[in-house]
Amino acid sequence: MTIRTPQPARSIADLSTPAVVVDIDALEHNLAAMSERLPGALLRPHVKAHKSTALAALQHQHGHHNFTCATVREMIGMATMITIAVDSDATVDAAARAGIKHVLIDVNIGLPRCGCAPHDAARLAERARTKGIVVRGVMGYEGHLMVNENRATQQTDTLAAMDVLRAAASEVGGDVMSAGGTGNYDVHASHRTTTGVTEVQAGSYALMDTYYSTLGLPFRQALSIVGTVVSSHDKWAVADVGLKSLGMDHGDPTIADHKVWFCSDEHITFATEKSADAATRTPQPAVGTRVRIVPAHVDPTMAMHEHLWLVRGDEVLDRLPIDLRGW
Amino acid sequence: MTIRTPQPARSIADLSTPAVVVDIDALEHNLAAMSERLPGALLRPHVKAHKSTALAALQHQHGHHNFTCATVREMIGMATMITIAVDSDATVDAAARAGIKHVLIDVNIGLPRCGCAPHDAARLAERARTKGIVVRGVMGYEGHLMVNENRATQQTDTLAAMDVLRAAASEVGGDVMSAGGTGNYDVHASHRTTTGVTEVQAGSYALMDTYYSTLGLPFRQALSIVGTVVSSHDKWAVADVGLKSLGMDHGDPTIADHKVWFCSDEHITFATEKSADAATRTPQPAVGTRVRIVPAHVDPTMAMHEHLWLVRGDEVLDRLPIDLRGW
Repeated sequence: MTIRTPQPARSIADLSTPAVVVDIDALEHNLAAMSERLPGALLRPHVKAHKSTALAALQHQHGHHNFTCATVREMIGMATMITIAVDSDATVDAAARAGIKHVLIDVNIGLPRCGCAPHDAARLAERARTKGIVVRGVMGYEGHLMVNENRATQQTDTLAAMDVLRAAASEVGGDVMSAGGTGNYDVHASHRTTTGVTEVQAGSYALMDTYYSTLGLPFRQALSIVGTVVSSHDKWAVADVGLKSLGMDHGDPTIADHKVWFCSDEHITFATEKSADAATRTPQPAVGTRVRIVPAHVDPTMAMHEHLWLVRGDEVLDRLPIDLRGW
Repeated sequence: MTIRTPQPARSIADLSTPAVVVDIDALEHNLAAMSERLPGALLRPHVKAHKSTALAALQHQHGHHNFTCATVREMIGMATMITIAVDSDATVDAAARAGIKHVLIDVNIGLPRCGCAPHDAARLAERARTKGIVVRGVMGYEGHLMVNENRATQQTDTLAAMDVLRAAASEVGGDVMSAGGTGNYDVHASHRTTTGVTEVQAGSYALMDTYYSTLGLPFRQALSIVGTVVSSHDKWAVADVGLKSLGMDHGDPTIADHKVWFCSDEHITFATEKSADAATRTPQPAVGTRVRIVPAHVDPTMAMHEHLWLVRGDEVLDRLPIDLRGW
């Protein structure tokens, strides 16, 4: 990885907070661990998790040349040659009107969200082809199976979902069968010769969050939000990182060796772990102390910030724009 | 209110989604209802709730010339003459170093967040005065009392918190005693002659969200996020408004006459209310249908968007920048 030398070199202590920081060693580890297991075109990294073309370029350096986007904003940022997922007459027709050349048929394989009924996939593919669109294959996202501490059950459920997707794929034609995510990427890596899955759409693996922490995945926490303590009390302290700089849908963030009490719009109230025991009370961090806060959900967190800081320990190496931020 | 005539006039159907829309009649109602009860300097509107200097200008037109900011970003956008809240030696000293001329002593009155211990307020005021800073008075935020369906208890608790704040105010000196919010603004309006509160820091009243809906306040829902249905199924539909365009810490948003199932990064899965009853099943909205989604928490929602659309019914009247977005 080529890192521009900042002028002057800076420490985390110099950053304006809240600041997104990405540990470069953890990031490198995650990109390497994934590309070893799902090299090249077997992984289609999801840019919605980091929202940064600079990080996408790093994934490209690790051999992944195809990317997944969730929104038009992300596509415009990433645009080279685009394949669109369609799941209805209306979306096929819209793709045709927009001059889209390539589509995947998005098939519902259990998550109540997008994706056509499996039995309708072949009909939609035919509709697209009659409009001159190349149907490259199918995608399905088993998002309801991403987090299951019983990983044997997760594997069984994933393979059952892939049976549904493979049946649709055989009726649709094309050579792409895209599925999966960070939570079951290894199931796909181990079983792809039987499932027929040609690529995995994982995003969170690069930066990670606490949502996947129960699965024993080999990825490290690269992302944290640095905050500054702005108010310190006998039993708690308050830092300047709140609901407007943290994705909250997966619950409260965590701070190592501290207990998070609650988050407000611009604040987080937390305490040192031993503070409930008055006899051995540890002092709360003083005003000005930097704290690293790990969000429960990486994707909406990144969407809120304008840039991230690549760091090693407390040393700041570079600033990268989160140029696809928003939705 | 002076509304610029858009060229050409547009409908909600023309907006790119997700789009923040603010019903102009509800907004006008809310601003008028509040300024009638807390006229002029009795209200210090909190800009963190809408993040827009254009909306602040409307509040200014309603007679409120003093505003509350939560962050430096908001202050820079609103800056004229600034009073800073301080609650520790470190923040007093930082204010002095920054050349701040006026401060309030922020007193903790029950919410475990910012604010000094009440018995420490006078000492901090003295420290500030020795550094040449004018201490204008005190502020305290009883945020833990904002939502209580038992409004009699809420009133009792609010008045008890004001007893604490008033005692600190008498020791601090100055002529400002700032407290309260949207959830108990009426308690403050009714009791200010006994509490001594000189101004209320309310923000949510202008746009509103579902968090305050149980209190029977006279404010109307002015804010909604317009989405477009992108996938429609037998039992559910999916629109393009998700975690990256909704504040989620107060729970799922609502859609009138529909049940929200869950939100994903860029999507919301929902169903018509009767869809569980197969005999009388109502069709789900078709792809392309516009839906209005009301977030549970207005402040972090506004922080995610670049502009809002002033609307009346489905007619779009104007676009206003959310220029203080972020934190």
